[in-house]
Amino acid sequence: MLQSKLFSKTIREAPKDEKSINAQLLVKAGFIDRLASGIYTFLPLGYKVIKKIETIIKEEMEEIGGQELLLPTLHPKEIWQKTGRWETMEDLYKLRAGKGEFALGPTHEEVVVPLAKKFIQTYKDLPTFLFQIQTKFRKEKRAKSGLLRGREFLMKDLYSFHTSETDLDEYYEKVKGAYFNILKRVGIAERTYLTYASGGTFSKYSHEFQTTTSAGEDIIYICQKCGQAVNEEIKPETPRCPNCQGKLFKREKAVEVGNIFKLKTKFSEPFGLYFTDRQGQKKLVQMGCYGIGLGRLMGTIVEIFHDEKGIIWPKEVAPFQIHLIELESRNSKLHTPPPPSHPRGGPLVRSIAEKIYQNLLKGKSEVLYDDRNDRSAGEKFADCDLIGIPTRIVISERTLKQSSVEFKKRNEKKTKLVKISNIKNFLIAQLTN
Amino acid sequence: MLQSKLFSKTIREAPKDEKSINAQLLVKAGFIDRLASGIYTFLPLGYKVIKKIETIIKEEMEEIGGQELLLPTLHPKEIWQKTGRWETMEDLYKLRAGKGEFALGPTHEEVVVPLAKKFIQTYKDLPTFLFQIQTKFRKEKRAKSGLLRGREFLMKDLYSFHTSETDLDEYYEKVKGAYFNILKRVGIAERTYLTYASGGTFSKYSHEFQTTTSAGEDIIYICQKCGQAVNEEIKPETPRCPNCQGKLFKREKAVEVGNIFKLKTKFSEPFGLYFTDRQGQKKLVQMGCYGIGLGRLMGTIVEIFHDEKGIIWPKEVAPFQIHLIELESRNSKLHTPPPPSHPRGGPLVRSIAEKIYQNLLKGKSEVLYDDRNDRSAGEKFADCDLIGIPTRIVISERTLKQSSVEFKKRNEKKTKLVKISNIKNFLIAQLTN
Repeated sequence: MLQSKLFSKTIREAPKDEKSINAQLLVKAGFIDRLASGIYTFLPLGYKVIKKIETIIKEEMEEIGGQELLLPTLHPKEIWQKTGRWETMEDLYKLRAGKGEFALGPTHEEVVVPLAKKFIQTYKDLPTFLFQIQTKFRKEKRAKSGLLRGREFLMKDLYSFHTSETDLDEYYEKVKGAYFNILKRVGIAERTYLTYASGGTFSKYSHEFQTTTSAGEDIIYICQKCGQAVNEEIKPETPRCPNCQGKLFKREKAVEVGNIFKLKTKFSEPFGLYFTDRQGQKKLVQMGCYGIGLGRLMGTIVEIFHDEKGIIWPKEVAPFQIHLIELESRNSKLHTPPPPSHPRGGPLVRSIAEKIYQNLLKGKSEVLYDDRNDRSAGEKFADCDLIGIPTRIVISERTLKQSSVEFKKRNEKKTKLVKISNIKNFLIAQLTN
Repeated sequence: MLQSKLFSKTIREAPKDEKSINAQLLVKAGFIDRLASGIYTFLPLGYKVIKKIETIIKEEMEEIGGQELLLPTLHPKEIWQKTGRWETMEDLYKLRAGKGEFALGPTHEEVVVPLAKKFIQTYKDLPTFLFQIQTKFRKEKRAKSGLLRGREFLMKDLYSFHTSETDLDEYYEKVKGAYFNILKRVGIAERTYLTYASGGTFSKYSHEFQTTTSAGEDIIYICQKCGQAVNEEIKPETPRCPNCQGKLFKREKAVEVGNIFKLKTKFSEPFGLYFTDRQGQKKLVQMGCYGIGLGRLMGTIVEIFHDEKGIIWPKEVAPFQIHLIELESRNSKLHTPPPPSHPRGGPLVRSIAEKIYQNLLKGKSEVLYDDRNDRSAGEKFADCDLIGIPTRIVISERTLKQSSVEFKKRNEKKTKLVKISNIKNFLIAQLTN
């Protein structure tokens, strides 16, 4: 895409109403815009990142049998009364419409369980796995952490339905695996700890995926023996590691990027979600639920991967793979007539940059091409570092004299000259490792 | 996908609370589920259709320069007060949260214009085109038309920003073209009429894309000379065709699947959205807005393409391209040992059906494979016709004796025997015409 056409522009000054690093950088770089506390627009650059994360999550959910659907946002009061959560869930947005009252869905057990009841009759209909990616709503009192805690936020929620606790247990382990695959692909698995947390009334524990960063609002204790962790909330009653009985812990701030929960019969009971087993017996369906926040993931990635100049996107979630920068000097000595292959003419630097851009597009590369002719080299480099695309290619007079262009990775300091004729091979080698 | 694993099942009886044909068929076939009046879940089958429509719309929007973003759903009261619509828009869902009040976005001018103000300064930033695909909310009093009129519904909204009315006019024509491309691809362009409608205070007319069907809640008058139409709402003051001055009209019921609107400075004025032109003059930005309903499109397609047996999906929006049906007789005379290439064994019909299924998947075909072994042939055919996938392939004893399988298109009566060895070529020929 041409940067001159990109809707968003970078902003020099960090916005005053943003305290968190992720929001400061994402707003400055033109990925998000703040409408109100905890309510953000994903600008075209930011939405590309969200779509990358979405694709990764979908692939991993489908890999473990998940079927995607889209549940409604407006939930009639009656279904939330069935579980008692209309009164007990404090962060529920409620609204009145005519005679009816609705909640804005913060989670979807109250909708998905009655739905499942329509299609699950016997053991033959189980197990089944449903997921969606959708905007959710929670009345947050403190929403000061940018994308880490929103009043409306994108979430993937998966619900699983089983004939037995054993089957639920097995699937729960599969989801753990899928979640670590997701975290690995978005680049934060190494800093993410499977963390024991409160299990509520039906299970002893649930598990959170906690990613360590100073921006985290949670405190976790990482077991120095097995590498799993315990949330501070349950640490007092859990002096030993529940996984390995270890006694040594390291205290860290962390962000809960995902959580998984054995609901067992907590929701199948109030809604009467039964199935008939092989022996013709009627039994309650066993359930699990599994959440992961897309915006929160994006915010966490920025909290971890940045430096004083800007964001450093991991490859798989970067909005573009290549930032192609043209440094065109108006008084260029190379301002010679273009070769016959460039009938449109124009300065040599631009002509070569355009040709490289077109070739990259043909090769299906995702390229942001800084074609702006009213910015200095300094401004272009600063924007490039702020936006944080993994690979930078600079086309300038200086290197064209050697028939070369300059490559630099955002996460490295060194630059490298590459012959124009060799760009393609160089890129293939670079993008595939 | 294996039909035995599909979450939704077909329902024999049409639900009593659904009056519209689209909702009756879509609910019976397992594409959608009704949570409350005008509020539906898109089940896995239905969500596949939505995703197909979404992809088509995205491609056509990007083709005319649209940049995708995601605007928030919770809109602070203050921005809606700026345009006066907090009071005047009757179908606004409102909610209170702490000290603040919010509307649930039914349209996004109030959000996108202040956003544009942050990035549009000079003529160099124009034109620019922003679109999103998102759930919108409208407090509908009557929501009896299934997907044609929802309280929450998926919509694509595009906003364009220009330096001049001339530029807006040109882009408006481009959007018309893009909309007809979309309608052509989803299969309803032939029945859709560009329809003059009220333009509000800033323009004489807006345009609707009205698709004729008896389920339509609108009445249009189609000019028999030029084929454009006039909405009944403005017909009294528009006795002649505004396009060609024609006098003969045909009255039809229709569904408004899309609309386009020259907003001009209606929203740039209250929000002070100015740009500096080439001469250094400050001017108001000219705007257009362009909507298209995804669920409504899906509902309209069903209203048009169905018969007494079920839905008949056009290829480009079908959830799958092929419905592969295995008719396995338990007392099969062909129940011979499988050929060596099928070490897992099992009856011949199943073994061949599975092999064809795997080969179709390898060839990237989208296949729903009815592998259910507890349904009669009659039930399988009825489900197949109800679900409405374009091509049916039946694997049965009868035709296997001739080393053949049976092909049938959903929209044709005739069946055709195709040699197993020739399936691939036959499919390629069929799917590409």
